Amino acid sequence: MTSSKGYLMTPGPTPIPPAVEAAMALPVIYHRGAEFQEVLARVLARLRGVFRTSGDVVLFTASGSGAMESAVANLCSPGDPVLVVSAGNFGERWAQIARSYGLDVDHLRVPWGEAPDPDAVAERLAGRRSRVVYCTHSETSTGVVADVEAIAARARAAGALTVVDAISCLGAVPLEPDAWGIDVVVSGSQKALMTPPGLAFASVSEAARAAAAVATSPRFYLDWERALRSQVEARTPFTPAVSLVRGLDVALELLLADGLEAAWERSRLLGRACRAGVRAAGLELFSPDHDSSAVVTAIRVPDGVDGAAIVRSMRERSGVTAAGGQGELKGRIVRIGHIGYVDIDDVAAALDALELAFAEAGSAVERGVAARSARAAHDAAAARAGRPGS
Amino acid sequence: MTSSKGYLMTPGPTPIPPAVEAAMALPVIYHRGAEFQEVLARVLARLRGVFRTSGDVVLFTASGSGAMESAVANLCSPGDPVLVVSAGNFGERWAQIARSYGLDVDHLRVPWGEAPDPDAVAERLAGRRSRVVYCTHSETSTGVVADVEAIAARARAAGALTVVDAISCLGAVPLEPDAWGIDVVVSGSQKALMTPPGLAFASVSEAARAAAAVATSPRFYLDWERALRSQVEARTPFTPAVSLVRGLDVALELLLADGLEAAWERSRLLGRACRAGVRAAGLELFSPDHDSSAVVTAIRVPDGVDGAAIVRSMRERSGVTAAGGQGELKGRIVRIGHIGYVDIDDVAAALDALELAFAEAGSAVERGVAARSARAAHDAAAARAGRPGS
Repeated sequence: MTSSKGYLMTPGPTPIPPAVEAAMALPVIYHRGAEFQEVLARVLARLRGVFRTSGDVVLFTASGSGAMESAVANLCSPGDPVLVVSAGNFGERWAQIARSYGLDVDHLRVPWGEAPDPDAVAERLAGRRSRVVYCTHSETSTGVVADVEAIAARARAAGALTVVDAISCLGAVPLEPDAWGIDVVVSGSQKALMTPPGLAFASVSEAARAAAAVATSPRFYLDWERALRSQVEARTPFTPAVSLVRGLDVALELLLADGLEAAWERSRLLGRACRAGVRAAGLELFSPDHDSSAVVTAIRVPDGVDGAAIVRSMRERSGVTAAGGQGELKGRIVRIGHIGYVDIDDVAAALDALELAFAEAGSAVERGVAARSARAAHDAAAARAGRPGS
Repeated sequence: MTSSKGYLMTPGPTPIPPAVEAAMALPVIYHRGAEFQEVLARVLARLRGVFRTSGDVVLFTASGSGAMESAVANLCSPGDPVLVVSAGNFGERWAQIARSYGLDVDHLRVPWGEAPDPDAVAERLAGRRSRVVYCTHSETSTGVVADVEAIAARARAAGALTVVDAISCLGAVPLEPDAWGIDVVVSGSQKALMTPPGLAFASVSEAARAAAAVATSPRFYLDWERALRSQVEARTPFTPAVSLVRGLDVALELLLADGLEAAWERSRLLGRACRAGVRAAGLELFSPDHDSSAVVTAIRVPDGVDGAAIVRSMRERSGVTAAGGQGELKGRIVRIGHIGYVDIDDVAAALDALELAFAEAGSAVERGVAARSARAAHDAAAARAGRPGS
């Protein structure tokens, strides 16, 4: 264990605000009592606000992958044709789940690090009818944020439902399910929603609910209809993670306090700052050098340097927990998350740690440049946006 | 909200020890880092201790019902013949889940409040082969604890696997899966394991794992094999509820500190004390007046009295949260749990609240008798057991 204060800078789980910690430390209450019902009713209303939907949001006690599975089990019957659009580790998960349910999967695989082309999606759908298009909003394994608005438009035109995995970015980047015609958005508590892991969500459009009414895949714990029937009465069908729900209640209040747009703007500025710092240190970005990349910044590790050693060194020398690469990117990138309860000082600390780790690995990196440049970029952007800087 | 200190006396969730609260309030750590791996490895080892098995225990971020579903999805293929033995609300859940998965369900329904007769189980199995027998150890809705050792013996003799729902009682009443030949035990964090809700478990015997290898029901989030492959490396396949796992680590340490037998004995003595108090107050027990009934004591509500009003009055007048009846017992019983982080003073407080509520509802109840009798019964039993009293 490090003796440092500790900075959790992964793309999830993310740090927890003190007010959320305090709510979770309250004594456990009975999930069938009026006190919890009040909390749950408030949480469900706030989730609608964060999901930007007038429809229902189902709450599960589960990891985000549980909510992903719910969007397969509730929408499809065995043998149903679906299109999976993937460009990284979490997109691959859609294909795994769909195959587990015996679906007929058309898989549009985009190289890791690239964004899916909506026209390629339209082409695939023209070539074969699919009932549902499964895609990923922020691909946490690469730092790429996809244009899900355009993908949903192509899917709708082809008569398919659209399901978006927004686990790592809901609350951090613009997403307008109702306005964009996205049928199902799944997310989790432990990313931009500033709550520990353990809760997952799925927004369900009218069309999705109608599809669920005829889908025959077996499901019980992840069944939407059962959950929605309970949620109408501010109950859950199964004992929920009471303490996490209480924390989420406070976290969503914080997130919505200045409006969701302000939260999106904060993430955008932190992403811009992080990229400026990486560039200034002479390191190469793997994630796009673009404002859409507001969730996680991925830094390419030069040949001959071990990415896992960089991550380890950041933690051991500086107390900064970053993430390495996953799947085919293992050892080849370092990922710094900047969503949730994170500010410019955290990003500066992470960049300092990154510099130190690369310097010790033999890279020609001048110390202090990255953090200084990040702060300067952040101040400039904040000033233009009329907000105070660091 | 009551201004009272508050006593959570439901059969789950149960109160949380301060050391567990403290562990959960630690900063969230990365679930893929070495620090969390250490915690998880310890938790998995301690779970084996509490489950009394040398086999594997799968950890899910889910309610207990998720673990129940895992025992259907992993063991069975559509159309498989299974026997469900039920004697209350939670036994009914097995039948619901099994039907959701398209199994061929033989349902042995025992009247609510009675214990299943193992010979009746043997008879059913003789009449029709079943691959799996699903039953409930402590039926939380009635307070009855079934003889799952005898049921498992009958199932084994008939070539069936045995699955036991021990959600409300694991750690509170004797259960020896390996010794009794029980293939799968499911449980949850929020009962005798003294942790908030959000984690669920399934112990998996070699025979159960072999059955899972050929079962074709679709599953992903609840897949045992995927979880076990990760757990071998002290990882989870999906982001776990990190803070709850840290709490559970401490809770299991507390539970195992004096040996599991001591925990069983504590519950037994509290059950005996609670029943003595109920009897002394002139109220009628619905749950059996027997030491096996160590999890929850159910009190019959006389005709003309509304059970829900009694529960409400206990909470509003005395700050004691008890539970009412479920399903066909709605309004007809009051349930006081005495598992987890509960002592004789909590039981006495609950009985005082019960007396007050009944007295105000017009019953001829002498105040103070129940708590006094409960303490006397507890002291006497503790003295016989060579342990200090209240």
